Amino acid sequence: MTASDFGFRLLARDSGTAARAGVLETPHGAVETPAFMPVGTQATVKAVTPGELHEIGVPMLLANAYHLYLRPGTETVMQAGGLHRFMAWDGPILTDSGGYQVFSLAGLVRVDDDGVTFRSHLDGSSHRFTPETVMEVQRALGADVVMPLDHCLPNPAEMQPARAAVDRTLRWLERSVHRLARMPVTPSRGTPPVGDGCMAGRAETVAGSQALFGIVQGGTHPDLRRESARATRAFDLPGTAIGGLAVGEPREVMYEMLEVVEPELDAHRPRYLMGVGFPGDLLQAVARGMDLFDCVAPTRHGRNGTLFTSEGRLNIRGAAHRRDHGPIDPACACRACASTSRAYLSHLFHARELLGLRLASYHNLAFLTGLMREARTAILRREFGGWAASLLDRERTAVS
Amino acid sequence: MTASDFGFRLLARDSGTAARAGVLETPHGAVETPAFMPVGTQATVKAVTPGELHEIGVPMLLANAYHLYLRPGTETVMQAGGLHRFMAWDGPILTDSGGYQVFSLAGLVRVDDDGVTFRSHLDGSSHRFTPETVMEVQRALGADVVMPLDHCLPNPAEMQPARAAVDRTLRWLERSVHRLARMPVTPSRGTPPVGDGCMAGRAETVAGSQALFGIVQGGTHPDLRRESARATRAFDLPGTAIGGLAVGEPREVMYEMLEVVEPELDAHRPRYLMGVGFPGDLLQAVARGMDLFDCVAPTRHGRNGTLFTSEGRLNIRGAAHRRDHGPIDPACACRACASTSRAYLSHLFHARELLGLRLASYHNLAFLTGLMREARTAILRREFGGWAASLLDRERTAVS
Repeated sequence: MTASDFGFRLLARDSGTAARAGVLETPHGAVETPAFMPVGTQATVKAVTPGELHEIGVPMLLANAYHLYLRPGTETVMQAGGLHRFMAWDGPILTDSGGYQVFSLAGLVRVDDDGVTFRSHLDGSSHRFTPETVMEVQRALGADVVMPLDHCLPNPAEMQPARAAVDRTLRWLERSVHRLARMPVTPSRGTPPVGDGCMAGRAETVAGSQALFGIVQGGTHPDLRRESARATRAFDLPGTAIGGLAVGEPREVMYEMLEVVEPELDAHRPRYLMGVGFPGDLLQAVARGMDLFDCVAPTRHGRNGTLFTSEGRLNIRGAAHRRDHGPIDPACACRACASTSRAYLSHLFHARELLGLRLASYHNLAFLTGLMREARTAILRREFGGWAASLLDRERTAVS
Repeated sequence: MTASDFGFRLLARDSGTAARAGVLETPHGAVETPAFMPVGTQATVKAVTPGELHEIGVPMLLANAYHLYLRPGTETVMQAGGLHRFMAWDGPILTDSGGYQVFSLAGLVRVDDDGVTFRSHLDGSSHRFTPETVMEVQRALGADVVMPLDHCLPNPAEMQPARAAVDRTLRWLERSVHRLARMPVTPSRGTPPVGDGCMAGRAETVAGSQALFGIVQGGTHPDLRRESARATRAFDLPGTAIGGLAVGEPREVMYEMLEVVEPELDAHRPRYLMGVGFPGDLLQAVARGMDLFDCVAPTRHGRNGTLFTSEGRLNIRGAAHRRDHGPIDPACACRACASTSRAYLSHLFHARELLGLRLASYHNLAFLTGLMREARTAILRREFGGWAASLLDRERTAVS
């Protein structure tokens, strides 16, 4: 990583909350924060094209190193010229390490201090990830931001295993930093080299300028969270992720953990809360100083017919929508809302038409992207607290 | 129908084949022929938006009255302001009567001279279509071109039942013409009235200007086909459809039937060959004087991973494509080919990603739309015969 093509500028802090507005510079463009990253696990945001993501204003995507390593395979993505070119997305990409996925393979995984051995969820074949190999895979993919292998436990976890996971995550982070620093600027295998011109004039910096974020763990134990945050901060990395939340604990506990961790983090580096993407949770987390988010919620819920709206969630399969010829969300300016009535979307879902999955995914992504854009405007005006409270109130009223 | 908003102008005939180039004027715009109509059975072309269809250059869609009558129901589409507005497609629409679908419900249908009684393929409920009710449903939907209820038999059919089906189709056509002529310009039920402004300045003409095409039947019996064509022509309708082909007979027999029927048809009215949509068949049918086509092939085959290309068909699931980083079809200028490699599309299909279904459907529709556009150019230059022969040769070579 070089200072010129990766960095974070803090532009404003809200008055009354810990919300922040900033800009994250990456080799594939700037990301205005707070920002929501749609999830493209398998090198595609489900049912949505890169062109549509640009149209929506999506600033950055997340993809998953574990999934891409297994299929289509790191080599194939390298041959394509890297992940950006393979999936035809020229904006910033963050790749998750796959630690979360590997540890979710209950019964299929064996952890030791050196790494994890696991069986593929696709064909049962045996594989091994170490902190080093995970860095190598992500270098080959060519993401702008890469994540270290970490040990993520479901909540609630007892103090002892939670502490062991924190310690292991820190030891693995050290090895990740070490491996990344010693990696050649261009990958040693495969032709053409990764990032050889996906976007003229800046893609050549991809391989040489990946930013590694540390990951804070610690379950729901305040002291452990603080300890993990401090130790992670000591690595002086370009950003910090908060992992191990939204994995079984009540919402309020998640918010409490953010309040515990936030004061321990460098104010001038971005904070990424992993796996959070419901509108209310995003506002609560922004109020607690978080800048980046990812979650499958908008696309997965969209495919189930659940739509985020300015008046709360609705399920389009409900009988009430069959003859409602009004828009999905009257307050939304996205292209799905401009052309589609609730009655039509209801018909598409009842008729099991693929267009329904597309329109619902598109709208939900546009809704969250717009929500983060509005949050940023409110922060820049130092009015985030009041603005967010009124939205949360409206959502609560609509849901009840 | 008024002469001003519906009509066909024959612009050119090829030298050496019966191919023709023309323009079909409809209340929702002009259709340059020959033209392929994508199928939007349930008020959506599967996996593709109206905006994408415009981008591809699709001139006209087909939807299905039988499916829409059952779901979401004629009333719901009327309340939306008609089918154009319901599905947000402002171009021309042809609705099929549903006769083909009803007669495909083996064991679930009872035919008498007055009409057909059938059970819904969705919930088993009992319904009755007569030539008159089918006109009423299509009037409520507000299509630009409507089709009469006809009796379609699978091929091969014996002479006796084939003749009975021709006679019934003609009697039903007479009743359809009669019913359409006596229908009020605006529908009698439902608010707002159908077609009350979907496209400013011309949608008001929809309800009052539907064009009814007759349907030629006759199985694979040349004399019966001729008889059916002559009797249908006597109705002096704005266009003629050729039904009961591509339903089990060999390709060569279909071509022969077209040669038998073509001389019997009015040269100054459009001819619509129903249910045909493979590239080679389209070229053969254009050479035999056909102007309009519809088929689920491009979208259905696309969803199965079969892609039409300038070098013949390919299945993207094949192992050869996994590491082929070239475009789907090097000769194609569509947006899917511009951004997507075969390796990426192969990955999307192997990973069962919805984006794969989208891209393959989009490309196949762009391919057929482009093929018809090129055919038209060749006809206008009186070079269609040679041009089509070279394409058919290339396809044969590539396939073998």
